[in-house]
Amino acid sequence: MLQGNAIVGQSGGPTAAINATLAGVIFGATQSSDIHTLYGARNGIEGVLRNDLIDLSARKWSHDDIRLLASTPAALLGSCRHKLTTESEYEKILNVFKQYDIRFFFYIGGNDSMDTVAKLSKYMQFCGYEMRIIGIPKTIDNDLCGTHHTPGYGSAAKFVATTMQEIIRDAQVYTKPSATIVEIMGRDAGWLTAAAALAKPDLVYLPERKLDVEYLVRDIDNAMRHHPNIVVAVSEGLRDTTGKYISESGKPDAFGHKMLCGTAKRIADIVSEQLGCKTRAIELNVLQRCASHCASAADVEESLLLGSAAVSTALHGASGQMMSINNGFECVSAEDVANRVKQVPLEFINRQGNYVTDKFLEYVQPLIQGEAPVYWENGLPKYFTL
Amino acid sequence: MLQGNAIVGQSGGPTAAINATLAGVIFGATQSSDIHTLYGARNGIEGVLRNDLIDLSARKWSHDDIRLLASTPAALLGSCRHKLTTESEYEKILNVFKQYDIRFFFYIGGNDSMDTVAKLSKYMQFCGYEMRIIGIPKTIDNDLCGTHHTPGYGSAAKFVATTMQEIIRDAQVYTKPSATIVEIMGRDAGWLTAAAALAKPDLVYLPERKLDVEYLVRDIDNAMRHHPNIVVAVSEGLRDTTGKYISESGKPDAFGHKMLCGTAKRIADIVSEQLGCKTRAIELNVLQRCASHCASAADVEESLLLGSAAVSTALHGASGQMMSINNGFECVSAEDVANRVKQVPLEFINRQGNYVTDKFLEYVQPLIQGEAPVYWENGLPKYFTL
Repeated sequence: MLQGNAIVGQSGGPTAAINATLAGVIFGATQSSDIHTLYGARNGIEGVLRNDLIDLSARKWSHDDIRLLASTPAALLGSCRHKLTTESEYEKILNVFKQYDIRFFFYIGGNDSMDTVAKLSKYMQFCGYEMRIIGIPKTIDNDLCGTHHTPGYGSAAKFVATTMQEIIRDAQVYTKPSATIVEIMGRDAGWLTAAAALAKPDLVYLPERKLDVEYLVRDIDNAMRHHPNIVVAVSEGLRDTTGKYISESGKPDAFGHKMLCGTAKRIADIVSEQLGCKTRAIELNVLQRCASHCASAADVEESLLLGSAAVSTALHGASGQMMSINNGFECVSAEDVANRVKQVPLEFINRQGNYVTDKFLEYVQPLIQGEAPVYWENGLPKYFTL
Repeated sequence: MLQGNAIVGQSGGPTAAINATLAGVIFGATQSSDIHTLYGARNGIEGVLRNDLIDLSARKWSHDDIRLLASTPAALLGSCRHKLTTESEYEKILNVFKQYDIRFFFYIGGNDSMDTVAKLSKYMQFCGYEMRIIGIPKTIDNDLCGTHHTPGYGSAAKFVATTMQEIIRDAQVYTKPSATIVEIMGRDAGWLTAAAALAKPDLVYLPERKLDVEYLVRDIDNAMRHHPNIVVAVSEGLRDTTGKYISESGKPDAFGHKMLCGTAKRIADIVSEQLGCKTRAIELNVLQRCASHCASAADVEESLLLGSAAVSTALHGASGQMMSINNGFECVSAEDVANRVKQVPLEFINRQGNYVTDKFLEYVQPLIQGEAPVYWENGLPKYFTL
């Protein structure tokens, strides 16, 4: 039986549930006699490279600590968007692992992080350094392969749908015709935008289908014949028929992805110009990824349990694997998940490409069930701090 | 004792509490034997002008109905931004009042609506038509004179502060220096932007002080010496030292107010240019005015009670008055409130003009207390519908 110390890290964009997964890892690791000390890496793999570790075992974790951490948004340990590239980085990591006798590494993140899990696991094996490296998925985008859904998605979906319900009510108070375009996160996969359909907006456009803006204008015009105030959900990653993003700012992030902004604004301008009606562009922006005050109990509970299950899985010998949710918790090869994107399948999008199908609603409904606890103090949510 | 029928209407921008006030009026009016039938005017005074009334007394209002309505965002009866101008409009309204034997008119709205209350009340008196017209304040802007605070403000303040807490956590996950500029509603009064200070952002700028953008850039630069990720709350109505809006779109609304957009975006661009750091602009947009999923219990309860108190006040003979909250509920002349704006006083803003004072925090704290009930159904808030 492998024994030693462990590191847990968080990577990628924050979610309302990523700290629940961390809480699960802490719960699992501090219960295990095979893991002596659990360290937290500040800012994911960057913290390992910088030798910037926190001794999480130094604290006596109460039930209340675990619960409060699970309801705290963003990433307690900090995050990063770091892609391992040079040989010297791998060597540095190995040295830190040796220095602290790290035999278990838990990395909570998206498909970029699964790339890190797969590569590190291979490298350590190649070097003959015995350890277990397990990826634990999180992303509001729900775009990871090998898992039915991703922790973090349900909470973001619940907030998006709740907010969309409010926006729709808000839009309907005036008699003057108007089109409200709501931009939702999701660069290449429309899962989160699709979740807006739970609130029953008029139209929903996902990046899985190229967008002919003329069709969208016509769809809005048709909808206005039935009632004056139209609300449309659009994905930030919508592309036109030539494959160009509806709105491109052109600045690539650390992984070479193009940063997007202003898809809703661009569409609102076109609609206003062509239909002459009042328009409003709303970007849900980072609000949708850290709204722990409106998180899904189903999601937060599952994220917590998945974190704890990752520890058991590592103790049982798995490495280079990602925890997944299919029929219960399973493992899939991190390599198979890394750098791939699971898009919304065709059967979840209607033929016209302007709404989701009932099949999608059946898929997403269970993920937003229940309200995760919020620990209110003096009128505001209380968070966990180290 | 005056007896007859009543109309209630809602006007201006939606809030999370305007339906609570409506629920209070319905509760009060349906309990009174002097008010025979309560009508709802669709889209405020426009509904009276169009003779578009709903018989609210036709329904048997249960306790659950009242509670669910109180937790429903936006304006159940619809709203308007209509300023009475022509003599013929006043005549039309008088005719409708006569036709339905309307002796009580309750108008829930902001300072524009109080103008309507004052003018209509005078006109009816001038015509010798006996009736009572009472204004009931609502606005997320908290900018009404004659009242300590305004229903709707506490809930918007709670959502803004809650969301700001989440944005601050979200901004802190990366090590790379960044400035996040969050734009909050409030054209001429910074009350709602000030409420963001409850979440302890780095800097807060209100429209009560002219903004020298160079000072703001310097403030951010200074703040970055202490920690890398700076979050700044700015009011949409910020003006530069020459008195020009930081961002102007130039389209005036029905009342001649200029529509604003992009203050945060403009500031983010300047900061990015001058400091060379990553910036992000976030507009809370309409989300902040209809977030009934995160409403203040103190606000929603008070709004409900104020609506009910307005009915008692009218039955006791008042007219041309606005309900106000000072030492308990009082009445003030609607004329004194109409078309005036209560700005954030100097003692609530620090000397440098980049934060609020503790005195302001003491003022706002009681208004965000408690969590208004949300009636969740299948994972989403349930709303009242007629």
